[in-house]
Amino acid sequence: MKAYGKIDWAFAAGRIPFRTTGKEPEMNSHDKIAILNTSGEDALVELLIFYEDQSPIGTYEVAVEAKRLRKIRFNDLIDPEAIRLERNYSCFIKTSVPVVIQFSRMNTGQNANAEMGGMAFPADL
Amino acid sequence: MKAYGKIDWAFAAGRIPFRTTGKEPEMNSHDKIAILNTSGEDALVELLIFYEDQSPIGTYEVAVEAKRLRKIRFNDLIDPEAIRLERNYSCFIKTSVPVVIQFSRMNTGQNANAEMGGMAFPADL
Amino acid sequence: MKAYGKIDWAFAAGRIPFRTTGKEPEMNSHDKIAILNTSGEDALVELLIFYEDQSPIGTYEVAVEAKRLRKIRFNDLIDPEAIRLERNYSCFIKTSVPVVIQFSRMNTGQNANAEMGGMAFPADL
Amino acid sequence: MKAYGKIDWAFAAGRIPFRTTGKEPEMNSHDKIAILNTSGEDALVELLIFYEDQSPIGTYEVAVEAKRLRKIRFNDLIDPEAIRLERNYSCFIKTSVPVVIQFSRMNTGQNANAEMGGMAFPADL
Repeated sequence: MKAYGKIDWAFAAGRIPFRTTGKEPEMNSHDKIAILNTSGEDALVELLIFYEDQSPIGTYEVAVEAKRLRKIRFNDLIDPEAIRLERNYSCFIKTSVPVVIQFSRMNTGQNANAEMGGMAFPADL
Repeated sequence: MKAYGKIDWAFAAGRIPFRTTGKEPEMNSHDKIAILNTSGEDALVELLIFYEDQSPIGTYEVAVEAKRLRKIRFNDLIDPEAIRLERNYSCFIKTSVPVVIQFSRMNTGQNANAEMGGMAFPADL
Repeated sequence: MKAYGKIDWAFAAGRIPFRTTGKEPEMNSHDKIAILNTSGEDALVELLIFYEDQSPIGTYEVAVEAKRLRKIRFNDLIDPEAIRLERNYSCFIKTSVPVVIQFSRMNTGQNANAEMGGMAFPADL
Repeated sequence: MKAYGKIDWAFAAGRIPFRTTGKEPEMNSHDKIAILNTSGEDALVELLIFYEDQSPIGTYEVAVEAKRLRKIRFNDLIDPEAIRLERNYSCFIKTSVPVVIQFSRMNTGQNANAEMGGMAFPADL
């Protein structure tokens, strides 16, 4: 199967919620992206994190195997450094083969679950 | 009326919620897509489901009649095999005529309804 | 100012929630679109509603003045006929000048507010 | 790093919620956009606000530094004039260098948090 999607992606409104009230693990507050690699080749994914008040941090490197999906929780990105909770960030993503990327957030900080999500922006459209 | 939309679509962040507290059927947890076929020709829709830890499963075949909408709950896809609850998946969709596809999720797992949705990605843009 | 946007739009996952518990009018369950006309010319908007089990109904005609926004609640579309609650529908929209269209839903049917929304799909992309 | 994104953006379904029950500041009702400027050059951002029943107001001017993210709460735009709560508005955005823009809303008006968000529309696509 051929590679579908794009190699440059971005989303702007990142923020990992601090408060969480949901049952672990499926109702826990988080920010994440899902990366679909339809191609027959492994994808090397490089993430660069932008902030309001300092230079961008990165790159964070992640692999997505051929013909696989990979979900990345931003809470789990710790090298070169962790993203602090309740801090605004944006994410730019470059991949070695075209992929499809969707972001989502679950916020259970107020005794009820709120979910938000959509496709990331194919930045080099 | 002509066919509007695209023939290749994808979304990456699929996951069928396990917990549900809402009144059946309209407040029941689910993942779904809505497919709009504006054309005068029936659309043959082929879905391929990608996972994190095994080869893609499919194709699942669905028809959408000419000048009709069809909603597909992923809970209902059982041939060649059902999608397990609370398991991450991505979906690639190819259709015989251009269509418009939107995904959505209702999650009533925490005594309150959360909804998320947006257009799927036109994968061959 | 020039006209920004597109003249053909669609969204697929329409459904007007039946149950509502929110304080009127701002927390009332509804499906709607917002149409932005940046141009110096009034826009004639024609909506066609698609269903799962019958031929499309329309057109519904709405005007959006030059340099204005207009929100349309689907509950309010009654000519040629009303859209029944809790019935799946899709919407195709054609306008006389380019516009930008966003859909959204508020569902207060389970004692908590759920909101969903995103840009409609520029159908002739 | 090069500039990613577009210079013309719009979203149509703006509305700042009046009611808020969440803990300040992270669970407070608001409408906002996040602007990512990946380029090495500061971005001058001009916002124009459209209404249902009067001429557009603006421009509101905001700067986004090179290689930075900036979040703008519409509650905070007061020059040339504030946006009233619970009033429908649309927003057109023009920037001096390409950027990526995402809108989002948090509505805690009914004792539970609801979030909505997605990419703004690249208006000159």
